[in-house]
Amino acid sequence: MRDYVEIGEGRQARRTYRLQDITIVPSRRTRSSKDVDTTWHIDAYTFDIPVMSHPTDALASPEFIIEMDRQGGLGVINAEGLWGRHADLDAAIKKVTQAALEGGNPTAVLQELHAAPIDHELLADRIAQVRASGATVAVRVSPQRAREFAPHVIKAGTELLIIQGTIISAEHVSGDSEEPLNLKEFIGTLDVPVIAGGVADYTAAMHLMRTGAAGIIVGGGSNTNYDTLGIDTPMATAIADVAAARRDYLDETGGRYVHIIADGELHASGDVAKAIACGADGVMLGELLAPAAEAAGRGFYWPSAAGHPRFPRGTVEALGLEEETPPLEMILNGPSTDPTGAQNIVGGLRHSMAKCGYTDLKRFQKVGLAIGY
Amino acid sequence: MRDYVEIGEGRQARRTYRLQDITIVPSRRTRSSKDVDTTWHIDAYTFDIPVMSHPTDALASPEFIIEMDRQGGLGVINAEGLWGRHADLDAAIKKVTQAALEGGNPTAVLQELHAAPIDHELLADRIAQVRASGATVAVRVSPQRAREFAPHVIKAGTELLIIQGTIISAEHVSGDSEEPLNLKEFIGTLDVPVIAGGVADYTAAMHLMRTGAAGIIVGGGSNTNYDTLGIDTPMATAIADVAAARRDYLDETGGRYVHIIADGELHASGDVAKAIACGADGVMLGELLAPAAEAAGRGFYWPSAAGHPRFPRGTVEALGLEEETPPLEMILNGPSTDPTGAQNIVGGLRHSMAKCGYTDLKRFQKVGLAIGY
Amino acid sequence: MRDYVEIGEGRQARRTYRLQDITIVPSRRTRSSKDVDTTWHIDAYTFDIPVMSHPTDALASPEFIIEMDRQGGLGVINAEGLWGRHADLDAAIKKVTQAALEGGNPTAVLQELHAAPIDHELLADRIAQVRASGATVAVRVSPQRAREFAPHVIKAGTELLIIQGTIISAEHVSGDSEEPLNLKEFIGTLDVPVIAGGVADYTAAMHLMRTGAAGIIVGGGSNTNYDTLGIDTPMATAIADVAAARRDYLDETGGRYVHIIADGELHASGDVAKAIACGADGVMLGELLAPAAEAAGRGFYWPSAAGHPRFPRGTVEALGLEEETPPLEMILNGPSTDPTGAQNIVGGLRHSMAKCGYTDLKRFQKVGLAIGY
Amino acid sequence: MRDYVEIGEGRQARRTYRLQDITIVPSRRTRSSKDVDTTWHIDAYTFDIPVMSHPTDALASPEFIIEMDRQGGLGVINAEGLWGRHADLDAAIKKVTQAALEGGNPTAVLQELHAAPIDHELLADRIAQVRASGATVAVRVSPQRAREFAPHVIKAGTELLIIQGTIISAEHVSGDSEEPLNLKEFIGTLDVPVIAGGVADYTAAMHLMRTGAAGIIVGGGSNTNYDTLGIDTPMATAIADVAAARRDYLDETGGRYVHIIADGELHASGDVAKAIACGADGVMLGELLAPAAEAAGRGFYWPSAAGHPRFPRGTVEALGLEEETPPLEMILNGPSTDPTGAQNIVGGLRHSMAKCGYTDLKRFQKVGLAIGY
Repeated sequence: MRDYVEIGEGRQARRTYRLQDITIVPSRRTRSSKDVDTTWHIDAYTFDIPVMSHPTDALASPEFIIEMDRQGGLGVINAEGLWGRHADLDAAIKKVTQAALEGGNPTAVLQELHAAPIDHELLADRIAQVRASGATVAVRVSPQRAREFAPHVIKAGTELLIIQGTIISAEHVSGDSEEPLNLKEFIGTLDVPVIAGGVADYTAAMHLMRTGAAGIIVGGGSNTNYDTLGIDTPMATAIADVAAARRDYLDETGGRYVHIIADGELHASGDVAKAIACGADGVMLGELLAPAAEAAGRGFYWPSAAGHPRFPRGTVEALGLEEETPPLEMILNGPSTDPTGAQNIVGGLRHSMAKCGYTDLKRFQKVGLAIGY
Repeated sequence: MRDYVEIGEGRQARRTYRLQDITIVPSRRTRSSKDVDTTWHIDAYTFDIPVMSHPTDALASPEFIIEMDRQGGLGVINAEGLWGRHADLDAAIKKVTQAALEGGNPTAVLQELHAAPIDHELLADRIAQVRASGATVAVRVSPQRAREFAPHVIKAGTELLIIQGTIISAEHVSGDSEEPLNLKEFIGTLDVPVIAGGVADYTAAMHLMRTGAAGIIVGGGSNTNYDTLGIDTPMATAIADVAAARRDYLDETGGRYVHIIADGELHASGDVAKAIACGADGVMLGELLAPAAEAAGRGFYWPSAAGHPRFPRGTVEALGLEEETPPLEMILNGPSTDPTGAQNIVGGLRHSMAKCGYTDLKRFQKVGLAIGY
Repeated sequence: MRDYVEIGEGRQARRTYRLQDITIVPSRRTRSSKDVDTTWHIDAYTFDIPVMSHPTDALASPEFIIEMDRQGGLGVINAEGLWGRHADLDAAIKKVTQAALEGGNPTAVLQELHAAPIDHELLADRIAQVRASGATVAVRVSPQRAREFAPHVIKAGTELLIIQGTIISAEHVSGDSEEPLNLKEFIGTLDVPVIAGGVADYTAAMHLMRTGAAGIIVGGGSNTNYDTLGIDTPMATAIADVAAARRDYLDETGGRYVHIIADGELHASGDVAKAIACGADGVMLGELLAPAAEAAGRGFYWPSAAGHPRFPRGTVEALGLEEETPPLEMILNGPSTDPTGAQNIVGGLRHSMAKCGYTDLKRFQKVGLAIGY
Repeated sequence: MRDYVEIGEGRQARRTYRLQDITIVPSRRTRSSKDVDTTWHIDAYTFDIPVMSHPTDALASPEFIIEMDRQGGLGVINAEGLWGRHADLDAAIKKVTQAALEGGNPTAVLQELHAAPIDHELLADRIAQVRASGATVAVRVSPQRAREFAPHVIKAGTELLIIQGTIISAEHVSGDSEEPLNLKEFIGTLDVPVIAGGVADYTAAMHLMRTGAAGIIVGGGSNTNYDTLGIDTPMATAIADVAAARRDYLDETGGRYVHIIADGELHASGDVAKAIACGADGVMLGELLAPAAEAAGRGFYWPSAAGHPRFPRGTVEALGLEEETPPLEMILNGPSTDPTGAQNIVGGLRHSMAKCGYTDLKRFQKVGLAIGY
């Protein structure tokens, strides 16, 4: 039963929990981390590690996307970011980081760069270049522009379509100005599997599952909207709720399994373990991957919504890196001398599973949990 | 049912919540923020945005009040502040900010400036000047001096009278020295609508509603009395309680709707959304508006009670502004490149409502809420 | 009913609350602070304000004790401090503050100064000097040395005897080495009223009430033992528990009223109001009074236990004062321009009571309370 | 009954408590600390104080181990640390601290030093040297290498064998690569008493008790795995749970008493008192002992797992010591002028017990507890 409190007479609020509020409780026989298998199957695709990258230009250089694949994960390209807007992608990114370095207004620079029109040919070329490397190609479009952009990016070689906004619903209601996007109808017309989100609760997730999406993204990235919108997604609760929706949807459909990808409150390898423990099948990482030598942002990170023309969310933040940046391999799969959970992220997950006596991701979703006081 | 804990044997305390403890939970179909209507009707007045300014001289220059009107909100003049006490208002304000800048005692300067007598003619001239601009004129008097000052300021053109003290009750009991103010009798004698407060709970609000006030202010501004008085107003609980009183009063009167204005814990656009979500119809903003170029305080803020002769509450605080200050328009209605919820406040509210699938303020009062752990 | 949680299987802990966890809730008609009466009667003595000073040499110069009386409160002299150990009291105090200023080990200096023997004649002379001023004389002895010292200090003019240790019980059990102190028997032999403490719970308080003490001190001062002993006294719970013991003792004795003095977690005027609101009749203030020009510590504060020979608790702390220190009058009774609750402490209490509609201390013990989340 | 919350639909988490969440509640007659007895008997060994040292090379120089014995406690040597790997132990430690001082990567240095093979003769010589001093010899091996190393170290003179990993289970399950360690069978083959751990819950502890271990270590040292593994051991709950397992095991075996040693969240003497109060018989101290003049780390501390070849946990931290470091005697048994609970740790425990009216460790396990809000 959901746990409610009365905040004032006749007004209730639900009690919710963050990943940082919970801990994993080992209570079975320990195992060796060598016996742990982190393989993740979604639709026809198989990944060695259950990790996607957040679709921000601060991460997604072509080299980054290709290296994500090499490391066993899935890099995500933002179709509405800078890849299709600027022939010299490198120079565009440099403008952002330069503004941040010089104490300028990098948000304004991002907004300006996003005001350039999207050149579908340029975007298609870049997507094709990634595909040519043999890497699995995942491209993100916004719900607002999905109808317009999806055909282009699919034609260019997209194998997994990510339809992602801060908060998404199966049906977006509009005034007279626009035709609403009915995701169920839309997804039905596509040839590629779709991962959609973010969602924050049982109902929205259930509706999204019914659209035919192969995966559901829970949460809104590291980009919290608490200050601007008063909306927040405490991830432990959100993942568990969506996992409950999955169970019910599995029953409703007699066996259709929808994957849950957690996107938020992931600050160290332990948080990744906790997201899986709450019911996620995979995670979408942003800031954690940003220190990688292959990342586009050169020591800076910003979420994809930071360039929103009228309502930017999140901002350009310096990562405070030393001169030598670690390769993505070290961050994801180690080995590393870092004891903070910022490197060898999947190694941390493996050790966590092994200490708890689990050897596969699905069963680890049942591990015991505790909350502090 | 109210939620009580036993703090010691036989002594109970009620569990209360701040706006910062709660979050808004989107669980309906998302909408476009273009479809959101933030119109606020109170008595015969209509405002595009549900925002009043806190009656402090740190905000209320004549230009500020006029610009509040232009932006669709309502600026409030403090009849007992400096407007009626000093012919050179600008010089008076400068003395305060100068003392703050030079590490002097700005509270003492404020006290000294407030010791000057009120020149009713001067105050009336200034009120008339604002009225002449076409702006709606709202003037605040204290409960203690309401009987003396209200006739003057109403004659000078006040359209909405704000009777506001830190904590107010429908009847103030006195010893022999003063005659008590019976607000019901007093409001009955006035020709203009009255907004009264602050109140913190159901009972005080119900009594105040019965005085005939058109609106009730909940809370005591950014000026908490926790350290000096041990009294605090956790706003989420207070707003919800007063909203419950409103429902009961609506029933008691067969339909008289009293407006609730939240005045406290409003530090970003998300807090404004949360205040409405708890049951408020509008908000009274202080510090959030202080960075505006039109604000009188030139980079400093103080609540109206900071100049109290014997018991000052709140103090003169530097806002740490950059040289270029944003216009009030940018703070209230945007557009802005600020991602912190400090600018485009009403834009934040609109986006919050749209993400949750609401298009008007009244229905948004029913949106789902959560509290963190 | 007491509120318990299970911290582990079969092991419970009681949920407790600090003064800082609670707030006072106004819910009656407001009154004028001029109508508030803070008179405190204990035994045959009457004080204008319900304030005692903590028995530390950091406060108690003769001038300080005399000024406490003039301000309507009660200053307390520590019979086992430096007054009876050093002919040049001023020089002794200077050694402590000098060591603190120069980054030395002021605790070691305090220990050394406390190693000097007590000269009962010297102490008696100083006590007589205070008595000669007309001030009420209160002297503190430890439970360990009460039997030895009480006769001396009473003969020297002590009107109220304070028997105070960090934690005290009605009977202290000893091994073979010492004879236990039975407080009931001991207090029965004295001609002056006794205030004893500190206690932290219902049972210890009830036993102490049965010794015939006129007042019970709740808590252990600002000197928490959490880090060294793992023992803490959350004051809201402790005061309420002891107030419950008082009610039961009142019933048991058919009307003997024992006063409760709160000694801990008092950091601002609001905390004083909250201590009364929880059930205290008066407060014992330490650090709050230390900035006074009359205080002995010259900008430094230490609790009386900081000079313990083997197990010092608390230490010598700089108060960070400006060159001009406020007179005790300003700190206790104002007026003041300070908005932080550090000055005009009793003014804060008066305003708190008035806002809540109370005019005497005893009834204010019933005011509504809330706790935050 | 265990206290669970629902973090999301159908997913529960247990509410747990840290030592820092609880406080000890005195509610009996106070006693003199001179009457307190802290003797700890485990198997055939008797210690004056219930204190073991954490098996890290940052503490364990031969002088440190010998001094631990002299002070009445038990020093622990790490068989898999540097003692058996480097002939010049002093120089090896210096390399670590030098790297830390010069801003290098001390974790990498530790890893490199641990890559050297173990010379069983060298280790045996060093163990024999300690034994020759008359000190009780306790040596730690990891569960992974216990089978290989235990015979060597026992032959060299080990009197108490410590089998300790971050998290340990009675049976470690392996894939094909290794043979699992069945602790019950293994311990049955040994001539010396075994203390094993760490464990975090009732079930793991019960299984470990059934292996025949004389003592169980609860917790994973100061080395939390929260960030890397998402696993944490809130010690108040863990100790109480394991104490419950002990009661049940005592009943099951008709009287076999297994000792509980707490290893975590011990930051001051008050925490030691709280660990005993929760049910521990003794404590294993790491960082608290590191400032000792006899400690090997020369102002630096690292837990034993900081040198793990692929997955280091914890790191090398500077203790910020002054030039003069206190002798271990002062840290453990005082006297001291330190009021923070960092010195005279056992003195703090004694005073805590005395204030609460207890004279032996076993009964103190029943003292009243409280938690703050």
